Amino acid sequence: MTFDVQDPEGLRLARALAPRERGAGDDERYARAAWSHLTEPGESTAGALVAALGPVAALDVAADSGGLVDETLEEGRRRWGPRLAHEPIARSLATAVRRGIRLVVPGDPHWPRALDDLGDHAPIALWTRGDTAALVHLSPGVALVGARAATSYGEHTAAELAADLCGAGVAVVSGGAYGIDGAAHRAALGVGGLTVAVMAGGVDRTYPSGNTDLAERIVASGGAVIAEVPCGAAPTKWRFLQRNRLIAALAGATVVVEAGWRSGALNTAGHAASLGRPVGAVPGPITSAASAGTHRLLREYDAVCITGTDDVLELLGAVPRERIVTERGFHVSDDTRVLDAMSFRAGRTVDDIARRSGHAPGDVEARLGLLRLVGEVEPVATGWRRRSR
Amino acid sequence: MTFDVQDPEGLRLARALAPRERGAGDDERYARAAWSHLTEPGESTAGALVAALGPVAALDVAADSGGLVDETLEEGRRRWGPRLAHEPIARSLATAVRRGIRLVVPGDPHWPRALDDLGDHAPIALWTRGDTAALVHLSPGVALVGARAATSYGEHTAAELAADLCGAGVAVVSGGAYGIDGAAHRAALGVGGLTVAVMAGGVDRTYPSGNTDLAERIVASGGAVIAEVPCGAAPTKWRFLQRNRLIAALAGATVVVEAGWRSGALNTAGHAASLGRPVGAVPGPITSAASAGTHRLLREYDAVCITGTDDVLELLGAVPRERIVTERGFHVSDDTRVLDAMSFRAGRTVDDIARRSGHAPGDVEARLGLLRLVGEVEPVATGWRRRSR
Repeated sequence: MTFDVQDPEGLRLARALAPRERGAGDDERYARAAWSHLTEPGESTAGALVAALGPVAALDVAADSGGLVDETLEEGRRRWGPRLAHEPIARSLATAVRRGIRLVVPGDPHWPRALDDLGDHAPIALWTRGDTAALVHLSPGVALVGARAATSYGEHTAAELAADLCGAGVAVVSGGAYGIDGAAHRAALGVGGLTVAVMAGGVDRTYPSGNTDLAERIVASGGAVIAEVPCGAAPTKWRFLQRNRLIAALAGATVVVEAGWRSGALNTAGHAASLGRPVGAVPGPITSAASAGTHRLLREYDAVCITGTDDVLELLGAVPRERIVTERGFHVSDDTRVLDAMSFRAGRTVDDIARRSGHAPGDVEARLGLLRLVGEVEPVATGWRRRSR
Repeated sequence: MTFDVQDPEGLRLARALAPRERGAGDDERYARAAWSHLTEPGESTAGALVAALGPVAALDVAADSGGLVDETLEEGRRRWGPRLAHEPIARSLATAVRRGIRLVVPGDPHWPRALDDLGDHAPIALWTRGDTAALVHLSPGVALVGARAATSYGEHTAAELAADLCGAGVAVVSGGAYGIDGAAHRAALGVGGLTVAVMAGGVDRTYPSGNTDLAERIVASGGAVIAEVPCGAAPTKWRFLQRNRLIAALAGATVVVEAGWRSGALNTAGHAASLGRPVGAVPGPITSAASAGTHRLLREYDAVCITGTDDVLELLGAVPRERIVTERGFHVSDDTRVLDAMSFRAGRTVDDIARRSGHAPGDVEARLGLLRLVGEVEPVATGWRRRSR
């Protein structure tokens, strides 16, 4: 099997796919475009090979049936071989060019560095519809994800959080699906915020097709619709699960708004946690199956309970914890006992208040003096009484 | 000031107040009855003195104006002095006798040993309406507490948990208030379970008076209504907060079902936590102010998220964690990729499946063999296809 990594037609298409601000050369871009056809998302053999040799030399090695004798590589070659052909790749690239899609790769100014945290599991390239600059404006960004079968409570909550986060200058990343994803994207668009949808299949075909209009609006707004799989790729279950790792890696924190017991959103949360990114979960009624997954995150995965936008900002590290600590105290001083022993109507003597409160009379006297200073009590003809405030 | 700790009338009343199964002597019981009039709940000076000398000698020392020179003791004497008089104590004891109330004290078989964990802050005695045996049947017991201003969601949840816990042989402790407390007590009664209400004021006067009928039903059911303050004592704010420590100490775990941001139920949770007892909180919609306090417990106090009775039993340590761990995994094997690449209708060749799945053909063949064994796929004339199950 031979594959020319310098194929002129391939290089021409790669040049046409480059974003306006480009860093990588045509041959690297073409090699990465080819790689995104050969491998399935998250495949570490390909990732390690590309990281070690660079995409061009790695592709050369992958296409070479002889040379290196290495079990892992031979194993990879057996997987990549059936897909290694100029013609189908060129067809897919031509579709992308025709649709105005850009291929952002490492080395380009808009490549999101946050993805580097994925190591050998990082995507080899990002197929992008919309403004590629959106990819570097995801910092700060929050992933708002959740069930497709969301309730109105969940969609309302997703929309509130998304709108408020955008208002605070935070971008919203999600999966472009029905339910929570869609509510988050739409609310972000509604307030003129930045939002990015990460697809499991090719960006030339919106999945679900019912959200085609939403995807167009995201693109038109200055946001982006992206995928690591090329044009024409179907959104298989595996690709959905791997897509979730991209959502988790692109965002500074992941918040699951509503999710069933086995929702894919828990998988996104799992990816975020394994990347060391903070994970939040919005609680809901325990009688709602649509919140069973978020409660599971709270119970079993130590997710942070999210009750509003401030909590999400705190999760991102944007708000000092101090604000909350000062509201914590339930301090009840002995003054409470003195006040309990008094009346708003009748005056009572110090001895009477001492007996009722269980404080020593001298103590009561001292406390009454302080309470008078803050306007809580007042002396009257028959002793002391509480003041209405 | 003189106070005869062997006052014959006092000893007679104390004998009449003893539970059927008694351990402590009349003089101890009378001294503790007197102490419960002198001190406010949770006062450690009295607790330490009683613990050190026993209730009778401690009362002697408290009544003695001379003798020991000790600042803390002098301070205590100043507080206790105004309340140290035979006549009002005897009047309160007579009310208790008339109402069939029993005074359970340390040394009695029904004294709940769990209260010893409170150390010097333990109650000096428990005034009890109903069956004193209920006090030792609180192990295992769960405190179900929450807002008076509960929603129907909160009351429904409290009732479900209480009924299920009673069904599992767990007693329900609460505060006899409106809202969550009342819903928990009522549901426990409804299934014939054991429930105990801990009052902030004297057990001769039910607070709130609207729950008088509930208190009677608890007493009639074999449960108990208890307090550490004597008959006639008003339920002051201080006593409510200290009552909460008794609820927390009597139960093996405390679960807050619904609570506002500053609800007293958070105080109960705080007592439970400081005693090392596990604390659970039931989540609710973040749009509900009645759940703001439970979310606060989840966020700031590391409370366990409670979604049902099993979670409460686990909190109590009654259910092994194993059950949940085995349900955790989200393992997705490479088989998923093979299955994704197949059709339920058309047969596909191994090479086709290899290309679509990104697996090596040899690998696909091996996986298809295993998947056939478990009935997931079948060979057909044109290759392999998935089986509907």
